[in-house]
Amino acid sequence: MSESFFTSRWVSRPPGLLDCAAIPAGFRFAALAAGVKGPTPAGLDVGLIVAEPAGTVSAVRFCDSGVLAAPVVVTRERCDPHGLRAVVANSGNANAATGEAGLEQAVAVQEAAAAALGLDPREVAVASTGVIGVPLPGGRIAAALPALAGALGVDPLGFAHAIRTTDVLDKHVALELELPSGSVRIAAQCKGAGMISPRFATMLCFVQTDVALDAQTAELLLGASVKRSFDRISVDGQLSTNDTVILMASGASGVRIERESEDELRLGEALDALLRQLALRIVADGEGARRIGCVRVRGAGEETVARVARGVANSPLVKAALFGGDPNWGRVAQAIGAATAGRAPLRFDIAIEGVSVARDGAAAEHDAAALAAAVARDEVLYEIELEGTGAEAELFFSDLSYDYVKINAEYTT
Amino acid sequence: MSESFFTSRWVSRPPGLLDCAAIPAGFRFAALAAGVKGPTPAGLDVGLIVAEPAGTVSAVRFCDSGVLAAPVVVTRERCDPHGLRAVVANSGNANAATGEAGLEQAVAVQEAAAAALGLDPREVAVASTGVIGVPLPGGRIAAALPALAGALGVDPLGFAHAIRTTDVLDKHVALELELPSGSVRIAAQCKGAGMISPRFATMLCFVQTDVALDAQTAELLLGASVKRSFDRISVDGQLSTNDTVILMASGASGVRIERESEDELRLGEALDALLRQLALRIVADGEGARRIGCVRVRGAGEETVARVARGVANSPLVKAALFGGDPNWGRVAQAIGAATAGRAPLRFDIAIEGVSVARDGAAAEHDAAALAAAVARDEVLYEIELEGTGAEAELFFSDLSYDYVKINAEYTT
Repeated sequence: MSESFFTSRWVSRPPGLLDCAAIPAGFRFAALAAGVKGPTPAGLDVGLIVAEPAGTVSAVRFCDSGVLAAPVVVTRERCDPHGLRAVVANSGNANAATGEAGLEQAVAVQEAAAAALGLDPREVAVASTGVIGVPLPGGRIAAALPALAGALGVDPLGFAHAIRTTDVLDKHVALELELPSGSVRIAAQCKGAGMISPRFATMLCFVQTDVALDAQTAELLLGASVKRSFDRISVDGQLSTNDTVILMASGASGVRIERESEDELRLGEALDALLRQLALRIVADGEGARRIGCVRVRGAGEETVARVARGVANSPLVKAALFGGDPNWGRVAQAIGAATAGRAPLRFDIAIEGVSVARDGAAAEHDAAALAAAVARDEVLYEIELEGTGAEAELFFSDLSYDYVKINAEYTT
Repeated sequence: MSESFFTSRWVSRPPGLLDCAAIPAGFRFAALAAGVKGPTPAGLDVGLIVAEPAGTVSAVRFCDSGVLAAPVVVTRERCDPHGLRAVVANSGNANAATGEAGLEQAVAVQEAAAAALGLDPREVAVASTGVIGVPLPGGRIAAALPALAGALGVDPLGFAHAIRTTDVLDKHVALELELPSGSVRIAAQCKGAGMISPRFATMLCFVQTDVALDAQTAELLLGASVKRSFDRISVDGQLSTNDTVILMASGASGVRIERESEDELRLGEALDALLRQLALRIVADGEGARRIGCVRVRGAGEETVARVARGVANSPLVKAALFGGDPNWGRVAQAIGAATAGRAPLRFDIAIEGVSVARDGAAAEHDAAALAAAVARDEVLYEIELEGTGAEAELFFSDLSYDYVKINAEYTT
């Protein structure tokens, strides 16, 4: 998979970032079928990541839903965010909207993993994805943990499969990065096709590297990369209850990243490209998706450009037009207006795939045939200029297709 | 059509409000094919309403898009909102995102109507619906106005057809209302299937009555009714550029509505029921819609309950489940969480069609077969209880169907 990992024209492979068959030093993975998705052999549904070095440094990001899943609450409130040594993740059940019992199940999984690995529970993160509102069979996961701990190895493929729900595209990779101070490795396993799919939800992303990092740098690098990747995508505008991103740095390569060094800059570039490509793959894997759109909005006011970008990306009219290969800028104009309610008259320019279709709020003459051909490709760029300058927002989004409706309507209880 | 006008279980026909074949006294209507939709005989596309009594009182509401259509701008800025005597409305072209030229076209139509009717341009409202971003052929409409003025009569049917775009269901009615002070009539012509359809947009609603009203009462009654009807619907969450609602009271019945009288109360009830039923008909006519959902949210904080209601009503996951007849409360829980970001842990109860499916944020045992049968009907009620009391929000919404995608994707330029 690595050869074609950087497939989007919106992500450049940074210099010195190479495909690699091996995982970062200091990490081990395991996965098995514990019966969460259903009676075995329903497939792999529990995975384990362990960072062996005691000095491993981590950083974490969660979604901020008002209805947070139990594993998010437990990891957020009972773990040391910078001292994570292990992750237990399951698919088949989100353990969301499960009340006190759900919290107890998540804690039981965390404690069983800590016992099996000889770690403090504060060092063990838990993550879940799957059906909302159904009690998690935490006992099955806890019972599987000794076997998982005994099966740890260097192949992350089983783990990557164990966290998938409706994902179709692969979202895992191992990379090698040439830094001024030496060669290091980065790996990631990610899942997500939207908040989304018949009662399944959630994006999860686990990133490992063998550089040595301090906690503040880990926070900084992960925060900046998430803002430019997972914070900028929308399949259907639906915030999940379970989203979790965890970066772990084992230090096992012997390369230490000093603050404000060339190493830090290059590592940041690599992490940025990695997470952006994974985020774009989630969008491309959006349920039923045929095309990816990218909307870029420039003008005055951070809040305004962000709201307009989100309004365009989440507009079912814009998304249906993207699916249909219809360069219909009237729908983009409508979405701009809806996102700027009360502020008429608003001046705006719209370009689709570099073709100026509206200028100063009205139609601009253009080559319709050339534009129609351009919007029939896999990735379509919408550029919007509002009044003023200084702010810019970017969002990636999938289209709205028959299959999205089919996938989300034809599940019946 | 009147016999079955109040078809929704969410609207009660107020006592004394009867079906009626005749329009309110003092009004005249006309319509013709002026070639806006395309070369005749593409169908009726321009309509005219005239209130004959000089003392007619009116009230108006518009959408607040940042990209307002030219007719909205012209009616808002060049008319006396309480002294409207005529409305010229066209379908086939929204005159939105058309710049200065669009404003000039709207003014030309307004002035041609004033000249043909012997009115001041400030007494003539203009309204448009149709394709966005294409110059309005205002000259064709202006040229048709003498013929329209000559064709004025008591049948509103042609007008009701002239303002339709993708509408399938009728949205016009004539009613008689028995007030303590005498019998009066109310009529309305409405269009709308969402902001929505291949480059077509907009809801328009024109209401006539022959009561005598002062301007302040007209404002009050229209404002309250719009808040409980057109402000509470969503087909696809997409704000239009052209929405316009106009109430005109001719006074020709001789019944004067005094402030804070029983007459005012009863007229308000009638207007409320009328606009709610029209709004529900717009939702039922939402492109591709099979079912209508109603979400009611109770708890503390007007802003919170409104945001949760809108989040549920606009969630493509909830809407696809509604289409599929799937009583999937996990999606409702997800939408609640997304609308209350940063406020976890949030306690909530959910009932679907009166069946309690979640209590205190977790699953409640219920009769799944009975619930499945209930959500297969045409109207589905979602009730959400959040923490606290004092605030309540209600929204009506259509489902998300294959046909919505088809209608909005298969148009290609």
